[in-house]
Amino acid sequence: MKSFTEVSSLFEEKCNRRHFPDEPAKLYQAAQYMLGIGGKRIRPACVLMTNELFAPINEDSYHVAMAVELFHNFTLVHDDIMDKAPIRRGLQTVHAKFGESTAILAGDVLFAQAYDYLMRINPAYLQPVLRIFTKTAKEVCEGQQLDMDFEEKTGIRMEEYVQMITLKTSVLLAASMQLGAILGGAGAGNQDQLYEFGKYLGIAFQVQDDYLDTFGDPEKFGKQIGGDILCNKKTFLWLHAMEVATHTQKEQLLAFTKNEEPNKVEKVTAIYKMCGVDAWATSLKKKYLEKALFHLDEVAVQKVHKQELHKMALYLMQRES
Amino acid sequence: MKSFTEVSSLFEEKCNRRHFPDEPAKLYQAAQYMLGIGGKRIRPACVLMTNELFAPINEDSYHVAMAVELFHNFTLVHDDIMDKAPIRRGLQTVHAKFGESTAILAGDVLFAQAYDYLMRINPAYLQPVLRIFTKTAKEVCEGQQLDMDFEEKTGIRMEEYVQMITLKTSVLLAASMQLGAILGGAGAGNQDQLYEFGKYLGIAFQVQDDYLDTFGDPEKFGKQIGGDILCNKKTFLWLHAMEVATHTQKEQLLAFTKNEEPNKVEKVTAIYKMCGVDAWATSLKKKYLEKALFHLDEVAVQKVHKQELHKMALYLMQRES
Repeated sequence: MKSFTEVSSLFEEKCNRRHFPDEPAKLYQAAQYMLGIGGKRIRPACVLMTNELFAPINEDSYHVAMAVELFHNFTLVHDDIMDKAPIRRGLQTVHAKFGESTAILAGDVLFAQAYDYLMRINPAYLQPVLRIFTKTAKEVCEGQQLDMDFEEKTGIRMEEYVQMITLKTSVLLAASMQLGAILGGAGAGNQDQLYEFGKYLGIAFQVQDDYLDTFGDPEKFGKQIGGDILCNKKTFLWLHAMEVATHTQKEQLLAFTKNEEPNKVEKVTAIYKMCGVDAWATSLKKKYLEKALFHLDEVAVQKVHKQELHKMALYLMQRES
Repeated sequence: MKSFTEVSSLFEEKCNRRHFPDEPAKLYQAAQYMLGIGGKRIRPACVLMTNELFAPINEDSYHVAMAVELFHNFTLVHDDIMDKAPIRRGLQTVHAKFGESTAILAGDVLFAQAYDYLMRINPAYLQPVLRIFTKTAKEVCEGQQLDMDFEEKTGIRMEEYVQMITLKTSVLLAASMQLGAILGGAGAGNQDQLYEFGKYLGIAFQVQDDYLDTFGDPEKFGKQIGGDILCNKKTFLWLHAMEVATHTQKEQLLAFTKNEEPNKVEKVTAIYKMCGVDAWATSLKKKYLEKALFHLDEVAVQKVHKQELHKMALYLMQRES
């Protein structure tokens, strides 16, 4: 079994090619630029790793891994427009660099190109793969809409937030796991377990994301600490604080979202700490990781074969950036 | 053989259903709203008509017709954002009504839903259908990018414009014809002829569009006459005028694009008439229609079976709105 690092670099080799024609130059430069911004390539790695649980990695898995990565990049381009984000991973976002209209189109063409890779696979697998992929694509759009709806909504319940995060980020990780399993020849039971593994791992991943944004080490985090607090984002931390804070603390937290306040990040973080949000987030992450690992345990292959997926899950939870 | 009107109303019945779940309400209301704005449903009608050239219309053709219409609506939503268009067919555009972020997402989900319909067809046809559909999707994005590039470019040659129009609008009509033929069981030769028929018909259609925008009957046209002139759009008419106008006329036309001028529409139209642009456009439309009909003639089925497609082509050319 190959490690996460090994499959990631196998994938990176395939990904680092040009995926588009030269013309129209602006459109395809924008699309290729987005792919070049990089990332951890977690989702394609999952496709390859869950394939290898059942059979040697086959060419179809690389196509599907590429499709998943293209799709992920499509959502990032469009999300960055909606969020008016100027920077991603230290580089200009696509719309900041190429203009909004080209960014919309570049996203569209990345989405189309995902299907271009999908349709190359063995026709015997095409229908189930398309079904999962397309269902997931719609769910991710739903998650993004819910995320936007939540910006204008107060009193969001924790389970609503988990549902939004599941759609916006977890289902793609879950689908990646299931797709690799399908291409490896797994049965329905194992596919489902791996889907659940990916789903809960995705939620744990988001808890970690929210945690690092406030409590991460500035030296290692790579972006500004407190970004979520500055833009009043409703996160796992915020929702929990609003559940457990005293009346006075709640008033303060709400006031911070309405007025510009010097040292807002420090002040909100201090309240979070007083409420024990940091310890709570750590235990919540652990809870979802355990749920994820429970489903990995249930996958009916020898334990030794699952070690690399287990290690990957722990690695993703311990990351500091 | 069913007429264009007959297949359109058959399709309309299937199209007038709800294609999306209830939640998230804003996202799916926006997507459904766009579908409700309507249109002539030309592309889905073509899928059904070219299917029927070779075999009775089958359920798969309805799925593909729906996919083509969903895709077309996706491009309209995103194009309207890029063009900052407030109105389409007398109704608010999606971004004007639901906001730009939801419009981007609604477009995305219409695109995903197109693939949802595609994947329902007989697996034996899935790969060729996906190949044509996805290739066409990318071409339409390319055409839109070229259209935007042309806004900032001077000295566009007529063949570049035709190439842009082919990508932006014709290839989808062409692909619709080919897809219907595939699902009817046509061979490669007939598929190609129908593709070419659709391609040239699409170009003729655009010539008619450009013509009506300036020379249409205000009573029948349904939108403001002269919209293209007002927003300095490079059209078939503009490009030809710039080819044949005198030096003075050219200077005047260029000056109109730079300054706000009272009665600009009337003044530009007058120059167009002096240059014979109206007669030229009518003959250009005829030329492309003839090219289209040549390819329809070449389709190896009995002439009587092709009559309805022939009539549809003439009908689209004579429309006044």
